[in-house]
Amino acid sequence: MNLGELGEFGFIDKLKGGAISRGDSVIKGIGDDCAVIKLSSGKALLITTDILVEDIHFIRDLIPPYLLGRKSMAVNISDIAAMGGIPREAVISAAIPNSVSVEFLESLNDGFQSIAREFEINIVGGDTSGSPDRLVINIALIGEAFEDEILYRSGAKPGDTIFLTGTVGSSAAGLDALLKGHTEPEWQNLIEAHNNPAPHIAAGRLISGLKLAHSLIDISDGLVSDLGHICDESGVGAVISLDSIPVSDSTAKYIRRFKLDFDKTTLLSGEDYILLGTMPPDSLAIARDSLKSAGCGFYPIGEITANRGIALREADGSIKAITNRGFDHFKKP
Amino acid sequence: MNLGELGEFGFIDKLKGGAISRGDSVIKGIGDDCAVIKLSSGKALLITTDILVEDIHFIRDLIPPYLLGRKSMAVNISDIAAMGGIPREAVISAAIPNSVSVEFLESLNDGFQSIAREFEINIVGGDTSGSPDRLVINIALIGEAFEDEILYRSGAKPGDTIFLTGTVGSSAAGLDALLKGHTEPEWQNLIEAHNNPAPHIAAGRLISGLKLAHSLIDISDGLVSDLGHICDESGVGAVISLDSIPVSDSTAKYIRRFKLDFDKTTLLSGEDYILLGTMPPDSLAIARDSLKSAGCGFYPIGEITANRGIALREADGSIKAITNRGFDHFKKP
Repeated sequence: MNLGELGEFGFIDKLKGGAISRGDSVIKGIGDDCAVIKLSSGKALLITTDILVEDIHFIRDLIPPYLLGRKSMAVNISDIAAMGGIPREAVISAAIPNSVSVEFLESLNDGFQSIAREFEINIVGGDTSGSPDRLVINIALIGEAFEDEILYRSGAKPGDTIFLTGTVGSSAAGLDALLKGHTEPEWQNLIEAHNNPAPHIAAGRLISGLKLAHSLIDISDGLVSDLGHICDESGVGAVISLDSIPVSDSTAKYIRRFKLDFDKTTLLSGEDYILLGTMPPDSLAIARDSLKSAGCGFYPIGEITANRGIALREADGSIKAITNRGFDHFKKP
Repeated sequence: MNLGELGEFGFIDKLKGGAISRGDSVIKGIGDDCAVIKLSSGKALLITTDILVEDIHFIRDLIPPYLLGRKSMAVNISDIAAMGGIPREAVISAAIPNSVSVEFLESLNDGFQSIAREFEINIVGGDTSGSPDRLVINIALIGEAFEDEILYRSGAKPGDTIFLTGTVGSSAAGLDALLKGHTEPEWQNLIEAHNNPAPHIAAGRLISGLKLAHSLIDISDGLVSDLGHICDESGVGAVISLDSIPVSDSTAKYIRRFKLDFDKTTLLSGEDYILLGTMPPDSLAIARDSLKSAGCGFYPIGEITANRGIALREADGSIKAITNRGFDHFKKP
């Protein structure tokens, strides 16, 4: 068996066994957006890490180095947002081929630092290395949260309403625009959504502080895939109402203009870095008001069910099941 | 200017500027073995990260995956040892080409977990990705220490005695043996020193707990290069007595047998992952007794001087200066 057959999530499952030596301080190990470590006085440390590999996660010619720096950090910040936490300290590793200029690295570093300043993150260390050919960036980000406010993937309950804090599909449409050279001004906001995503820390903080939600995750793999993580960890299923999926006007326009598959672009494509969560229906009004008044989005899109599996409710009320859970870096489709 | 001309340390210097948004909690940012973050009640968080790139840091055919897993973790544990801390939580990222088998990954993971158990480290998370061709491993490790016991690179004072906690050159001799196919039983302990280094956590804890040392670092780049880091950060110089450099019998035998350059192998080669520190001469006896009774090595090798620069004292008493500070991943010799 090779990794292509096992898949990324299968490999992560293998890593889980036997990884904890001192169980007392670990509230959550492998298997959520962040690890959660007990600190004193009701606080907890959040830890997350993401590796970005050239030609897997980015194409060097299609993203300016400044935005590559911002995005490398943003994907980690988004994991902290998905726990309801505050990002604090980052360490950055880079394996750098000789074909990368010092000017490129300075812009990359400007990108790291600009988003770090926006979110009041300290870049406290790192490691650099040569690389035979491809640029690789790894960031580990530490955050903190009050232990009783942290939201996990595992808390969803049947009857919960599923909600999003933003629109889906813009990043996928932006990537399509980049790959096909559709760089006209009208598609720049889609390209921006792909290259310069804005992690939803404020929304995550509000949702966790309200203590109304049962689960939370960020959309990195894709709506259906990440909802699948919540369902798997919570032992539940879900029904999504297709006509309630929030899609921006320009994303919808791009999908129509270039005849993309609407469901694939909005449900199975990743990297929107918005939040997906669940909460009881009677909490929706309070959460919506709180988020809207802070300028955050709030979109109910379906319900958690006791029956496992994820299903789509079409506009005509008919239901269809989904089997493909979106993008997996290793597994062949 | 490209990275080859700037060098790794030059690039890290560039990263330092503007990296700290909230200065209040950061005791030490970029520029030591670990970052140090203030916690409550006199404790501090230590954070370090290391990236290992195939064909830069390791050759896949020359190190069994189990030992690659152990070594990837060991180099980070050694950074915690160099601050006098205790390792606690690790996150592991791996970018994995399809040419890597699941069996290889299972052995790699066994290696991560075996050394984690030995040092009571929790592996709490990670990230995996595909990779077009080369295996890349990044580990970020979090430790802790009492704030008033932490040892930095910056504390060395003129008159301090320089000491080592182990022998140097074994890792370089082991790498030479691997590259030249000298895999006979008599060189296995050298190959073991290169592929399976044992980080000096116990020695680091003892040294920091005694509160007698002024500075500490681990030997990853090489004795002269790492002593140079202490001198640069402390604004001092050093004289090393060549005939006091501790070298194991088998390393000395290997150097003679295969006509390696003795000074280059012992002074300029890295990856021994022992500790190098400085303390006042009147503390040596206490430190030596404490370390020896715990089974740790302790070898005085020279003195810190007010004059900058690093010099070698030959057996005949003559002094020569050193200019080459060992291995830099980018800079051309």
